[in-house]
Amino acid sequence: MGTAEETHTAGETAVGEELVRAVSEALEAAQADRVRALTAGLRAPDLADLLELLEPAARVALIQALGASFDYEALSEVDPAVRDQLAEALPNELLAKAVTQLETDDAAYLIESLEPADKAEILARLPKDERAAIERNLEYPEETAGRLMQAEFVAVAPYWTVGQVIDFMRETDELPDRFSEIFVVDPAFRVVGSVELSRLLRTKRHVRVEDIMARDRHVVAATADQEEVARQFERYDLMSAPVVDENQRLVGVVTVDDVVEVIQDEAEEDIKAMAGIGEESVSGTVTETAKSRIPWLVVNLATAIIASFVIKQFDATIEQMVALAVLMPIVASIGGNAGTQTMTVTVRALATQQIGQVNAPKVVMREALVGLLNGLVLSLIMAAVVLVWFGSGQLGLVIAAALIVNLLAAALAGILIPLTLHVLDLDPAPAAGVFVTMVTDVVGFLAFLGLATLWLL
Amino acid sequence: MGTAEETHTAGETAVGEELVRAVSEALEAAQADRVRALTAGLRAPDLADLLELLEPAARVALIQALGASFDYEALSEVDPAVRDQLAEALPNELLAKAVTQLETDDAAYLIESLEPADKAEILARLPKDERAAIERNLEYPEETAGRLMQAEFVAVAPYWTVGQVIDFMRETDELPDRFSEIFVVDPAFRVVGSVELSRLLRTKRHVRVEDIMARDRHVVAATADQEEVARQFERYDLMSAPVVDENQRLVGVVTVDDVVEVIQDEAEEDIKAMAGIGEESVSGTVTETAKSRIPWLVVNLATAIIASFVIKQFDATIEQMVALAVLMPIVASIGGNAGTQTMTVTVRALATQQIGQVNAPKVVMREALVGLLNGLVLSLIMAAVVLVWFGSGQLGLVIAAALIVNLLAAALAGILIPLTLHVLDLDPAPAAGVFVTMVTDVVGFLAFLGLATLWLL
Repeated sequence: MGTAEETHTAGETAVGEELVRAVSEALEAAQADRVRALTAGLRAPDLADLLELLEPAARVALIQALGASFDYEALSEVDPAVRDQLAEALPNELLAKAVTQLETDDAAYLIESLEPADKAEILARLPKDERAAIERNLEYPEETAGRLMQAEFVAVAPYWTVGQVIDFMRETDELPDRFSEIFVVDPAFRVVGSVELSRLLRTKRHVRVEDIMARDRHVVAATADQEEVARQFERYDLMSAPVVDENQRLVGVVTVDDVVEVIQDEAEEDIKAMAGIGEESVSGTVTETAKSRIPWLVVNLATAIIASFVIKQFDATIEQMVALAVLMPIVASIGGNAGTQTMTVTVRALATQQIGQVNAPKVVMREALVGLLNGLVLSLIMAAVVLVWFGSGQLGLVIAAALIVNLLAAALAGILIPLTLHVLDLDPAPAAGVFVTMVTDVVGFLAFLGLATLWLL
Repeated sequence: MGTAEETHTAGETAVGEELVRAVSEALEAAQADRVRALTAGLRAPDLADLLELLEPAARVALIQALGASFDYEALSEVDPAVRDQLAEALPNELLAKAVTQLETDDAAYLIESLEPADKAEILARLPKDERAAIERNLEYPEETAGRLMQAEFVAVAPYWTVGQVIDFMRETDELPDRFSEIFVVDPAFRVVGSVELSRLLRTKRHVRVEDIMARDRHVVAATADQEEVARQFERYDLMSAPVVDENQRLVGVVTVDDVVEVIQDEAEEDIKAMAGIGEESVSGTVTETAKSRIPWLVVNLATAIIASFVIKQFDATIEQMVALAVLMPIVASIGGNAGTQTMTVTVRALATQQIGQVNAPKVVMREALVGLLNGLVLSLIMAAVVLVWFGSGQLGLVIAAALIVNLLAAALAGILIPLTLHVLDLDPAPAAGVFVTMVTDVVGFLAFLGLATLWLL
């Protein structure tokens, strides 16, 4: 019998360097028994890690070596780059077998990027019901509830008794692997309520389902964006939500484990978008990665050149006083940092709907005041530094004034640019950074060199 | 009876500007009936939104106006700034009532920031069991599993039959609001397994629990970091996990809805840390916000000054050729952007454990090659621009060479700095940005102005 000592404890990762090396060697030596022994204790997510860490050819070899003991769920857990490679390399017969063993959403993930001919061949090998369910998932656009849902759920009529429901579940084989609630539907298969299993378990057998069901169900449209679905799960602490088609018919269920991934992915997307990174993974190639990053760098090169045009207007001033060239990057750089702070807060507040029409004017005002306040603090420090370094109080005053101007500009750009993009229905995360740093560069150089020209020369 | 038309659909947010205004007016006019009517349909998370959007005094007035119909769960859903204000302003009697109605983790959240005297008074008003459970939560450090867990769970002995378990659940009042699995414990209260409710429901009454329980349970130590707990939930698609103390005794359970918040918070923390923002919320005051942002700006000011020292070394060169001052910010800025790209990917890969000893050398090599490749592309563009703009092929060559050098430096700094911080057990998210931009600024100015001094003068 198991004891607490045998149970897993959070924190351990099963797949280390040694295991990867040992499996690689066993695969090269074609020692299938050794491969099986090495991977015997691994669960699907660990197996997925192992697949990601192996060389492409070794991945296919591993799956073939494991044969019937390979857990197909691992295929739905690998990242898209590895999935595409495997879906390409594995025989359709094996993929079809994997698809029948996965839940609808995982099966759709596995085959979604295949060539139409391969996809059709695999679907043709499936039982009719499963094929229909997967085809329906694939009909919905990516990143919608329809793609995320699984077709496996329990739905009963409101007039059933608790005893009937329990007997039905005991007798049916085709139940989802895990579920935490059942849905109650009318004859047109529209959702009228739901019952949590914990409730069902505590109710006497003769009670009718309609007397214990929760009626205020969160119903998700199959076409709803996955980010919106995730927000509802988070907000209302949902474990699962019924998905309905355009006729309000129940077609699937989204479960919280899928949503956990969406939340992770969406936050990840925002972080990466703000840094100008597209979809890329640690297992991507050099050219793929370089390609995904160069557009952002070229756009930034263009804005940096625009900022240089501003400097060029003042070359006579700089020629007379080289100290200006020494100090001007400071003004631009601090403005850029302050603008990024405000922009990041705004982008995340928009993503989590903490900012809206109600409080936007208040938040803009607050940012402007924060910018002025911090501008004041920084300009005092900087004026003192310049006084000591260059021995010029006047130059200190010029840089202090330029810093205050630029920090105000940074605050306003940092909040108004993402808000505007949001109102225009554009995603603020990727575009805002470029515009904000352009504003802080241009205003920074213009304020500092302009004020210097007016006051010092 | 409810129909699908009446159910909620993902996408609507209940609390709009109009509602906030109407409630504010009704509160000012002391029309308690109107306040109750306006807020009647709101669930706890909506009520929490409303509290956040109201003025501080109006928040207290709202809770008092609602009286017995106020849903205390809203207090556990407001952001920390609003919670602190309310915990301060509300009478201890009301807080004690709220605490008894909340689950352990939510109750602990509500009172954790109170003065010791107030906390003690509220705890003294609670039944002994509840008090002990909350005190235990508060003993664990913030952001650990012990803080996240609730003390409400179902634990049974392995020799119980399914029928006994179901009867026990029907007869006990003190069950958690919602749960998806029960735990199996030995006489020393150590976890030996778990049974999902869906499994329990489908099993005949006479079967023993030990015959259907899952033995490979993920057990979480109460002292485990919440980020680590979240990673395990995500990785193994857990719905809940038992929490054990240092003697392996079961003391609580962490549920997936708490974990969803942790995932959101941790991603948020990383985004904000990288932009140099501490804990701040949209409802913070101007001085709070300014204070939380100024340290990062001061640190950046210091690094910008260091970069200026580099420029200062070349002031004679700049005096001879002002075009250098015009172009040098481009080299530094593009380096900064490329460094941020690499750094962001690295920080997130570290956070999600996609980078480790196994693949680190490969990833460093890949980043260096990506940097060189993109440096080549950008330097070709820039050389052409400079040739046209300044009519100097030599100056074009200098900036091209400087760009390649700086993009390689950016790639290496972007990956090696966060990796080093990680190895030193420091959080790479907040610190990496400062060092990376310092490297790209210093290398950028040094390479460009240094090469120009050698080649052009």
